[in-house]
Amino acid sequence: MRGFASRTKLKDALKLVLSRVKPLDSEMVLFERALGRVLAEDVVSKTDIPPFNRSAVDGYAVRAADTFGASETKPKKLRVVGSAKIGVATKSRVRKGEAIKLMTGAPMPQGADAVVMVEHTKIEGKHIAVLASLTPGKNVSARGEDVRAGEVVLRRGQQLRPQDIGMLSSISHLKVLVFRRPKVAIIATGSELRRPGTRLKSGQITDINRYSLSAGVTSCGGVANPLDITPDKQQAMRRVLQKALKNDVVLISGGSSVGEHDIAPDMVAELGELLFHGVTLRPGGPTAFGIVRGKPVFCLAGFPVASLVAFDMLVRPAIWVMQGLPPDWGCLRVRTKLTRKVASSLGRVDVVRVRVWSEADKLLAEPIRVTGSGILSSMTRADGFILVPENVEGFGKGIIVEVELY
Amino acid sequence: MRGFASRTKLKDALKLVLSRVKPLDSEMVLFERALGRVLAEDVVSKTDIPPFNRSAVDGYAVRAADTFGASETKPKKLRVVGSAKIGVATKSRVRKGEAIKLMTGAPMPQGADAVVMVEHTKIEGKHIAVLASLTPGKNVSARGEDVRAGEVVLRRGQQLRPQDIGMLSSISHLKVLVFRRPKVAIIATGSELRRPGTRLKSGQITDINRYSLSAGVTSCGGVANPLDITPDKQQAMRRVLQKALKNDVVLISGGSSVGEHDIAPDMVAELGELLFHGVTLRPGGPTAFGIVRGKPVFCLAGFPVASLVAFDMLVRPAIWVMQGLPPDWGCLRVRTKLTRKVASSLGRVDVVRVRVWSEADKLLAEPIRVTGSGILSSMTRADGFILVPENVEGFGKGIIVEVELY
Repeated sequence: MRGFASRTKLKDALKLVLSRVKPLDSEMVLFERALGRVLAEDVVSKTDIPPFNRSAVDGYAVRAADTFGASETKPKKLRVVGSAKIGVATKSRVRKGEAIKLMTGAPMPQGADAVVMVEHTKIEGKHIAVLASLTPGKNVSARGEDVRAGEVVLRRGQQLRPQDIGMLSSISHLKVLVFRRPKVAIIATGSELRRPGTRLKSGQITDINRYSLSAGVTSCGGVANPLDITPDKQQAMRRVLQKALKNDVVLISGGSSVGEHDIAPDMVAELGELLFHGVTLRPGGPTAFGIVRGKPVFCLAGFPVASLVAFDMLVRPAIWVMQGLPPDWGCLRVRTKLTRKVASSLGRVDVVRVRVWSEADKLLAEPIRVTGSGILSSMTRADGFILVPENVEGFGKGIIVEVELY
Repeated sequence: MRGFASRTKLKDALKLVLSRVKPLDSEMVLFERALGRVLAEDVVSKTDIPPFNRSAVDGYAVRAADTFGASETKPKKLRVVGSAKIGVATKSRVRKGEAIKLMTGAPMPQGADAVVMVEHTKIEGKHIAVLASLTPGKNVSARGEDVRAGEVVLRRGQQLRPQDIGMLSSISHLKVLVFRRPKVAIIATGSELRRPGTRLKSGQITDINRYSLSAGVTSCGGVANPLDITPDKQQAMRRVLQKALKNDVVLISGGSSVGEHDIAPDMVAELGELLFHGVTLRPGGPTAFGIVRGKPVFCLAGFPVASLVAFDMLVRPAIWVMQGLPPDWGCLRVRTKLTRKVASSLGRVDVVRVRVWSEADKLLAEPIRVTGSGILSSMTRADGFILVPENVEGFGKGIIVEVELY
């Protein structure tokens, strides 16, 4: 048993992680299944949208020149020579002194260059009285007004939202190139671990991390692949790691502290390159990271809070980057006032879980008292956390701090 | 053709919608599939967590009284009588003057009431020198310290996050009662609509709304059920609405304006109760809402921007509420400075799409110039939108406004 020889600063640890991950290869998916995926291509439209000039209102297609000078008191009379249906181009033509009735979205008839809104007309038998003067193009939605053929409509690196899915449909871009979602193997080690629902003998505990880490992976767009519970014996762990390396990322929870059973980082060092072991972070200090056969491997603490905190700080950013997004994607920060002081130690980043609520239009943050890395309720009762930096001994009551929301 | 007799204020329209929707019935799901779902029960733990007293550090289990007065210069000597393994309760007992070696997480041996950290000891053959004085309970994680049997650990109405999934595992709450996700039928009406990828004849356009609205439904936790494109003829629409009513919500896009083809709201009025038709909203004014056979039916405009904006304002809140969440769940607002002025008309809420970026630590919002309700690129190029209220004629350049992020 020994302490960590030297801990890596959290900031440097994150830099090391990000220096070793990059966006994965890409894959084609149907546009209608692409919500939340990240584009690996610039999407270019092959066509004009709308594909033809069309009316933007319900009314009458006219020649603008025929309406010049028209007003409520001096209406201009036009003869209605037909009506244009939505969905079919009308063959009728608007000549001088004529109008064609049409609905919003109907294609503009030949000869017409403006649409007078129905509200600005009066019907007089087979004629209409136009009560307003129109400029050419008025109330016409012009071909290519939304998108021009050849235009980039969506860019590589953007995450697709409902309107973007609509745009892909609009330009008939049926298959879309997106970054592959990282497959993340999750190994929980520990002879004391039992599946939830198992009757426990004294000394045994229920496995938490495979489930909380799987949910963490899912929550940032990864594909979680939890493997069986593994005894923390070298042989068994080596076997399961080999299998896990078929994935894009491997998380090992447990066996990362410095002690007799702490074999995960040693195994990474033996089979690949260990980049750090021990981080100036609490909880989550006993975290290690390395590369084995080209795959990033994170060794996380066995304690559920420590493993989830290290996941948030170091793994989640890597999973975003592997999907083509920035490392701090989805981070939501709010400014709050501390309801009581927070003590911390120099030389490490403390992750203090807080409850957040609003009072008189201000946000307040109350640190949760229990902080042990085994106390999961400190996270389930929290709405977010504050980071107390390495060079700060704590924050006083009433100080304004940034809370990162869960 | 006629204008809307009277438009309902957006605020009142939302109130009407929310007065007619409530959380759906609940269902049991496996806890490991429950991420993002909303609890329909208070979850109570049946057991203490941790289930036994255990060590919070690597070190030696001792009787605290044996260490009183110990220090670096005045160490106390204890005899190591065994070691406790993780996962099995040790049968050894710590008597006066004795210590048992143990790892973080190992159960406390009988007789011991504190753990001295390995860093505060020196090994001297079969003895250790204890270099610090301990109080009873020091470095012991007590049974029930995280959760006590009978305690409510998660509350009805909360959306489950990774740590909550971990907690459900921890207390072996294998099946969890959550609100059902609303199934939302999506009907796109319009004889001019064609599936994406179809070669268009003049006057025809590609269907957008079934895809963008489906993605919108998915993005707020609903289950989208897009039905076939429907001609805007009464008979056909009535048939498809009957089928759609098997779902929890029905969205009809197209046929909601006031014009010849505007039959959706009339159909709602005929088959059920029409609560409003026409809202002081732009885009999205031609929106109607009613109840048919107990199910909320929204008639949205055919124009893609208008339908998505009305979806955001009126449908999304309903879908959250039906899952047991507040109507404004997931709304993300930031304060920004307008880069140029925004004009608007009195008497309606204008939804102005904006690009947002940060410059010198400040957020700026630039209104997107094209605003027509057919111009989908005004939404795909936007990061969010601002609302210009009914009683305001616009905002000046440099004004601070709240942007709701997409």
